[in-house]
Amino acid sequence: MSRVGEGDRDRVEIQKATAELLAAVNSSDDRRLLAVWSDDGVLMPPNHAVVRGRADLEEYFKERFSRTRFRFAFTFSDIQLAGDLAFERLAYTAVILPAGGAQPVEDAGKGPHVYRRQPDGSWKLALDIWNSDRPAAPQTSTAPEGG
Amino acid sequence: MSRVGEGDRDRVEIQKATAELLAAVNSSDDRRLLAVWSDDGVLMPPNHAVVRGRADLEEYFKERFSRTRFRFAFTFSDIQLAGDLAFERLAYTAVILPAGGAQPVEDAGKGPHVYRRQPDGSWKLALDIWNSDRPAAPQTSTAPEGG
Repeated sequence: MSRVGEGDRDRVEIQKATAELLAAVNSSDDRRLLAVWSDDGVLMPPNHAVVRGRADLEEYFKERFSRTRFRFAFTFSDIQLAGDLAFERLAYTAVILPAGGAQPVEDAGKGPHVYRRQPDGSWKLALDIWNSDRPAAPQTSTAPEGG
Repeated sequence: MSRVGEGDRDRVEIQKATAELLAAVNSSDDRRLLAVWSDDGVLMPPNHAVVRGRADLEEYFKERFSRTRFRFAFTFSDIQLAGDLAFERLAYTAVILPAGGAQPVEDAGKGPHVYRRQPDGSWKLALDIWNSDRPAAPQTSTAPEGG
């Protein structure tokens, strides 16, 4: 029988939470995704205002999943523990499939997860932010109304 | 004489580091900016690969500052301490001034700083990521070579 240190156990719990988040996103399952989050979690999506707290997260996920399907994969993870916070650095690849049959968009990028240990000992997601490695679409500042 | 707790002292140090970062960015001072960073710091700029470690950070800052001037302001900060890590949640506004007199671009967004306490007790930036609240420029996926 091998003994597993507390830090190792925490790491395994966090890896499980991130795997659960990935499965939930890739199956467009907002309830399953919400279960990974802490009540006051803060989501920082690119090109969107901050989404904070369970009610707003639920509304955001429902809306996103209603118009897009995702195929995310994490290609890198490094977890650091610090007291009741844990900090995971990630890289991802993604295929984003708009509803209605528009062209899929491929993406690759990076970001951290911040997890917070809950009073019951479980780890829940407290913050998620990411951005793309890909070049931005050309600025259209000379045509403010778009093309 | 009031006594200041250790957590309060750490918070003040982190606020100072963030103020120093801001002043360095807004004055395009790569040396001053590098002094805020830990040796193995990880910068995650939007639309760019991860930049990691002092040598690559220096190269990145020099290149950015050579072609752009920035006027950043932080409009929100919340600092959480956890052992030797500290975690600052921020919101920003920015005016980005390309070299050569092209149109300034305004931006607003959000992101966390992760600071790590160093062996000498100082706090250095370990990770910085942000993204914009503004809508993305329209996808140009039907014209892969751009316009």
